[in-house]
Amino acid sequence: MGDTPDIVEITATADLPAEHYGVRAHVLAGLVQKGLPVPTAFAVSVAGVHKYAVGEYPKNPAFNTRLVPGALYSVRRSPVQRAWGGPRAILNIGMNFETRDILAKTIGLDRANDLYCRFVRSFAIKVARLDEDDIEELVEHQFTNAGRDYGHLLSELLQFYRDELDEVFPQNPHVQMQQVLRAMALMWEGTTARILRSARGAPADAGIGLIVQDMAQGACQGECGSGIGQFVTLATGAPGAHGRYKSESQGHDAVSGRGGELYLGVDPRGPSLEETAPKAFAQLRDLAAQVREIHRDDVQLQFTVQDDKIWILDAKPAERSGRAEVAIAVRLVQDGLRSKPEALMSIAPRSLTEMLHRHVDPKAKRERILGGIPASPGAAFGHIVFSANAVQTFAAREEPCILVRPETTPEDIRGMQSAQGVLTQRGGMTSHAAVIARGLGVPCIVGAVNCNLDIRKKTLTLEDGTVLREGDMITLDGTEGEVLRGAVNLVEPDFDGPFTTFMDWADEFRRLGIRGNVDTPTDAHLAQGFNIDGVGLCRTEHMFFEPGRLTAMREMIFAEEDTDRQAALDRLLPMQRDDFAELFEVMAGMPVCIRLLDPPLHEFLPQTTAEMRTLAEAMDLPLPRVQERAEALGEVNPMLGMRGVRLGITVPGIYDMQARAIFEAAADVQKRLGQELHPEIMVPLVSASAEVALVKNRVETVAAEVERATGEKIAFTVGVMVETPRAALRAGEISKYAEFISFGTNDLTQMAYGLSRDDAGRFMRDYVNMGVFGEDPFHSIDVDGVGELVLLAVQRARARNPGMVLGLCGEHGGDPESVAFCHKVGLDYVSCSAYRTPIARLAAAQAAIQEMGS
Amino acid sequence: MGDTPDIVEITATADLPAEHYGVRAHVLAGLVQKGLPVPTAFAVSVAGVHKYAVGEYPKNPAFNTRLVPGALYSVRRSPVQRAWGGPRAILNIGMNFETRDILAKTIGLDRANDLYCRFVRSFAIKVARLDEDDIEELVEHQFTNAGRDYGHLLSELLQFYRDELDEVFPQNPHVQMQQVLRAMALMWEGTTARILRSARGAPADAGIGLIVQDMAQGACQGECGSGIGQFVTLATGAPGAHGRYKSESQGHDAVSGRGGELYLGVDPRGPSLEETAPKAFAQLRDLAAQVREIHRDDVQLQFTVQDDKIWILDAKPAERSGRAEVAIAVRLVQDGLRSKPEALMSIAPRSLTEMLHRHVDPKAKRERILGGIPASPGAAFGHIVFSANAVQTFAAREEPCILVRPETTPEDIRGMQSAQGVLTQRGGMTSHAAVIARGLGVPCIVGAVNCNLDIRKKTLTLEDGTVLREGDMITLDGTEGEVLRGAVNLVEPDFDGPFTTFMDWADEFRRLGIRGNVDTPTDAHLAQGFNIDGVGLCRTEHMFFEPGRLTAMREMIFAEEDTDRQAALDRLLPMQRDDFAELFEVMAGMPVCIRLLDPPLHEFLPQTTAEMRTLAEAMDLPLPRVQERAEALGEVNPMLGMRGVRLGITVPGIYDMQARAIFEAAADVQKRLGQELHPEIMVPLVSASAEVALVKNRVETVAAEVERATGEKIAFTVGVMVETPRAALRAGEISKYAEFISFGTNDLTQMAYGLSRDDAGRFMRDYVNMGVFGEDPFHSIDVDGVGELVLLAVQRARARNPGMVLGLCGEHGGDPESVAFCHKVGLDYVSCSAYRTPIARLAAAQAAIQEMGS
Repeated sequence: MGDTPDIVEITATADLPAEHYGVRAHVLAGLVQKGLPVPTAFAVSVAGVHKYAVGEYPKNPAFNTRLVPGALYSVRRSPVQRAWGGPRAILNIGMNFETRDILAKTIGLDRANDLYCRFVRSFAIKVARLDEDDIEELVEHQFTNAGRDYGHLLSELLQFYRDELDEVFPQNPHVQMQQVLRAMALMWEGTTARILRSARGAPADAGIGLIVQDMAQGACQGECGSGIGQFVTLATGAPGAHGRYKSESQGHDAVSGRGGELYLGVDPRGPSLEETAPKAFAQLRDLAAQVREIHRDDVQLQFTVQDDKIWILDAKPAERSGRAEVAIAVRLVQDGLRSKPEALMSIAPRSLTEMLHRHVDPKAKRERILGGIPASPGAAFGHIVFSANAVQTFAAREEPCILVRPETTPEDIRGMQSAQGVLTQRGGMTSHAAVIARGLGVPCIVGAVNCNLDIRKKTLTLEDGTVLREGDMITLDGTEGEVLRGAVNLVEPDFDGPFTTFMDWADEFRRLGIRGNVDTPTDAHLAQGFNIDGVGLCRTEHMFFEPGRLTAMREMIFAEEDTDRQAALDRLLPMQRDDFAELFEVMAGMPVCIRLLDPPLHEFLPQTTAEMRTLAEAMDLPLPRVQERAEALGEVNPMLGMRGVRLGITVPGIYDMQARAIFEAAADVQKRLGQELHPEIMVPLVSASAEVALVKNRVETVAAEVERATGEKIAFTVGVMVETPRAALRAGEISKYAEFISFGTNDLTQMAYGLSRDDAGRFMRDYVNMGVFGEDPFHSIDVDGVGELVLLAVQRARARNPGMVLGLCGEHGGDPESVAFCHKVGLDYVSCSAYRTPIARLAAAQAAIQEMGS
Repeated sequence: MGDTPDIVEITATADLPAEHYGVRAHVLAGLVQKGLPVPTAFAVSVAGVHKYAVGEYPKNPAFNTRLVPGALYSVRRSPVQRAWGGPRAILNIGMNFETRDILAKTIGLDRANDLYCRFVRSFAIKVARLDEDDIEELVEHQFTNAGRDYGHLLSELLQFYRDELDEVFPQNPHVQMQQVLRAMALMWEGTTARILRSARGAPADAGIGLIVQDMAQGACQGECGSGIGQFVTLATGAPGAHGRYKSESQGHDAVSGRGGELYLGVDPRGPSLEETAPKAFAQLRDLAAQVREIHRDDVQLQFTVQDDKIWILDAKPAERSGRAEVAIAVRLVQDGLRSKPEALMSIAPRSLTEMLHRHVDPKAKRERILGGIPASPGAAFGHIVFSANAVQTFAAREEPCILVRPETTPEDIRGMQSAQGVLTQRGGMTSHAAVIARGLGVPCIVGAVNCNLDIRKKTLTLEDGTVLREGDMITLDGTEGEVLRGAVNLVEPDFDGPFTTFMDWADEFRRLGIRGNVDTPTDAHLAQGFNIDGVGLCRTEHMFFEPGRLTAMREMIFAEEDTDRQAALDRLLPMQRDDFAELFEVMAGMPVCIRLLDPPLHEFLPQTTAEMRTLAEAMDLPLPRVQERAEALGEVNPMLGMRGVRLGITVPGIYDMQARAIFEAAADVQKRLGQELHPEIMVPLVSASAEVALVKNRVETVAAEVERATGEKIAFTVGVMVETPRAALRAGEISKYAEFISFGTNDLTQMAYGLSRDDAGRFMRDYVNMGVFGEDPFHSIDVDGVGELVLLAVQRARARNPGMVLGLCGEHGGDPESVAFCHKVGLDYVSCSAYRTPIARLAAAQAAIQEMGS
């Protein structure tokens, strides 16, 4: 701190790094250096401010000599990072009777008294810590009984000050200034301020600088006033003048909404600065352009107008929506102000979410009736329905609906496809409803616990006792996790030109492949619109929930004889084959990774007695037999039960059928398109290499049979989904048989933590709030634990087979931090739901750029 | 193989390693070297036998010249390991008309014809591969129609041979010998023999040698015959002559049960060799003693008597029960024949099981009606009951009963304590029933799937349609996993003197501490009888299932207000305190590791509507409210849900209460006994270090409060149960807070494999049979996967705190291979149920001895 004086004038030669003087001092110094009009100002360093807080008063002779009668000063915050906030500005310092009289000569006594009143009020409240309510009451009382007489008000205020504190209001500007600076320093170090800025990510020792700035208060021949403005449109990023201005105002008056404000540019809603003071407006526009070049970003200016001349009080990044952010970044590159890597690094990948989905019109009135976990972004409105069947009814009438369930099961998928949104009472970010909704791009809120859901009675009772019934209209804001009353206006997503350009740049830089999770041919069409590098995960089980197939599936499960089972599988074969054929056709030669059947069989079973009766009739079995078998298939911990490869090995006919469907479809499409296909067959829930060897052997047998029958050779590979910690540890041995590995980090996280994603909701929020977990590990990959398992597996797999293809599929594939981790450990690709691939593409580009720079 | 001739005479100078000539050749060579009476014999090497199999005929001039008229030979197996078995001996080779006539002169024509017939029969069946049934029918027919005329029978047999094969029975002894040797070689390499020996643990390329031995067939002036005997008692290991002998017999005639056999020593059941031929008996006893010295083990001799002289045909380890094995091992050390380490290494730890429990009398008639997984060893009989309540009824009448359930829950524990045995339809080796039963020492069979259990109707229907009802008598053989009809005679366990001596020796050598899993004061008394080093795991939840406590527990769970919850906890406090006080008193200063509450709360909830109604009444709540709350507490995957430390952090009052109970009890007992206590407080299901920091902080606060109140300072430690893969990986960081670590490898295995112990039963047997898993990982620790996690955790914990106490608690603690692993990775102790601690003690001693030797 040897060469960082406590108080320094902001001149063209001053060196004011943000870390020592705060970002505002740094910005103003930059503008002064470029000769832009900035009022004379002094910066108090972070260290200096701290001295004020502990009761020391740093000295700077030049600073002291400026505090002369007739001049006023403001003190404004200059935090090291803008996001940290800080105390609001205190204006009109230096005001006393002498200065009041001097100013009265140019601006009139009434206005001079007004300024004096303003200063006394803010000094009394913020510095002397008198009760704000008492003072406001006094002002109110005064105005009511005596009219707007600022002279009288001033006397009352000074009297009040004297009565409360037993001392007169300080008349010495030096005393005023010292006390203001000390008060602002103390405010920064107070408990409330600490909590507030800590919530905004500030460290415990976050510092603040202060700016002491001349207030222009001379005679106003031309236009005088203050305002805030930017020359870029918040919502779209398109050029356009936006802001507010108020004549004869100071501070934040222009945006306080007390009336008399002007729009910045011409606006149908009212008069504008552009019309009222075109010269000042033109100056402002020109200054904004200059600052844009200096900052290499569109800016928002806080300014004053003094006799038609603009003075810049502060310049910060222009306000912008997620969509505008992209448009601005693209134009900055096109204008030569930024490089592509800079533009790519400037946008948080997660902020793209807003662009990819409909969202609630920011201007709409929101009446929040219920909250939950924002599980799938976007917004939708519709009539409440309580079953997947009811969705179909509404969909048939082309009426929008929101499916409300305690939680969803695979049987609800068709309902979810046709619903506009999904709301569940249970579950967390990675519950069934959440995962499927994100895959479908349907807005979804889960874990809406503060309500009472009665599916039988078809009622949803809110905390306040309100009862919602089937058909009632609600709006789901899946981005914010809020349920709103009625149908609220929505804004459509827009993959505009700048967005496409931006994503193309991301693709230029990223090394990591980005694949999509695609379960059906419909998904595949959708995913192709997102420019993916292939299919990283096709969950074949979703194909079995189509009507007709489910019955065959159930017959397969209930079969007591191998021949009956084979008969059911034979019926499923052509259906699976058709799905795969369509999928292969859409993906046209790109790699398609197909996961063999994974979930426990009982997920396919009928749940209700009615469904069981239907199945009993279809299979000509007594109902109790069906119930008994369904019960026997139940599991205590289905997540850790008879599923995945365990099913494949114990009932080998299922995987045989699936392999045959894949090869027959591939042979057919390959022949028709004349293009080589690359199906990748993935074995789920592996924990031992022998499992892979067994399945691979059977798959190869089927491949050989299909090749003999069709004459088409398919270039397939067999690989493993690494979801158990043991599979990660044994990746070396598993790589003897596996030709690729895809990390299923959802399950890997569940098993590493011993934590079910379905049950974590109960305490995850508490855990994150208490800091037990830094972050929900289902949301962003746990680098320390799960990450080490991935890293060990990567090292061991590559040690055996350096060219092995390694990927990650699942929710983490759409999380920027997790994508960065995947890049760092050297995976070849990540795969996530199509709607999240743009986020992954940008995150992958950023990881690559960061690596180049480091 | 350069210096291992294909055929070599067994002389005092012959070097016949078992790996080349088989163990019998090796043993016989050893006896010949010591000058013991062994008939002249040649050994055919493993390589030599293989040549016979492929149609080569090794040459040995000395061997060939021995095949002279009038002499007979036997060919016996000499496998490389005895356990591999092999073809039965073929006797009387060399028999033809010429030799028949020579022998007839000394033993009479009839007996000579008999021997010829015997040879023709076995040659025809085993060498010429004629149909055994045809030949037996011919013999039967002959004896029925013509009486026992061996001359006539011989003609018939030779005629049959000629008719079937169109060639005469070979008369040339060389041809006979070659064909016999080739036939036995081919038998060894046949598919059936391969499968049989593979089941006995033989490798695919297991070899066999053969022995060609002179058969003594001279004139019998004195006693002649053959027998098998040992001088140690099978059941107890006490000295005593046991065996069978038959005059004028050969081969296994003495034990074929055809009549005319003698007992070896004097026996009330019939005449004995000791009485009939005291000289031969004395000789035999003397020879057995000599061989015992040579082999440094009690032996069983196969012998012939020729004119009152004993010839040893084979010597192998004496047959012995598990109990006898220990007694023999101890006496061999006491007789100076073995060292203590040798004795300790000679016994498989698992074989001690038999000694620790009642078992079915080996002589009893077993009528098996149902099979399952042998989950807890020992045997018991009792009346079938279908509920824990019914157990109480039978127990009140002092009638033994067997609890039969689909599976057990914590509520069944009191029933299990009073039942003689437990049988469940579901579950595996580590299901609730299995774990609790082993802890209680109650015989238990789980996974008895081949039956239909109707709890409501109180019937157990077997596969054959038999219906068993409440009150029907069955016997459970938990060691074998068999349910037997009726009450079968049982044999009591016996911790005899040799057993105690043997276990003391084990304690001299082991480095690993052996603690007991002790849940209640009753368990503690029991465990002290097993000479444990402390309590490695006290599962506090078991204390809550006592009647009266359960209600308070349920009220705590259902409490909606913190004050209500605290009131319920306040009622539980003195109960827990009393339990701990009694436990501390029994363990008298030994380390006692107490695990804070672990299972999900819903395990404590009422299951049936009746129970819910009772609770609703007790709490003055409407029934639907109770049902709703119970449902809300349900979890999809309870194993991975809201349990362990998650519960402790979310509802901190529970752990606070438990900590207070521990410290208050410890203060009280410490004051009374005047002895320092060492309670260890263990936090379950940790996955992040912050969890430990939070709980430790609260525990220390409670400790300080209790110390202030009582004036007693308790030397407690706070540690972690490492059950999640993540906790293992983060053991270094966790060791910042944890003062000890105990590996819960049950749960660690579940999570590493993604495999619930409750659900694994469905496919575990298939998986092990198919070789997918080498062994059930819940049974013996998976060294490759789970083991690596343990090893990483040990390294990381010790790197931070070299003196840290590391243990393992759970089922693996009683598994010898797992104990060896724990020794190897440097754990300080293992803890298992009291009944398994002797196994652990021996396994730990063996691991230490093996380390010394390596």
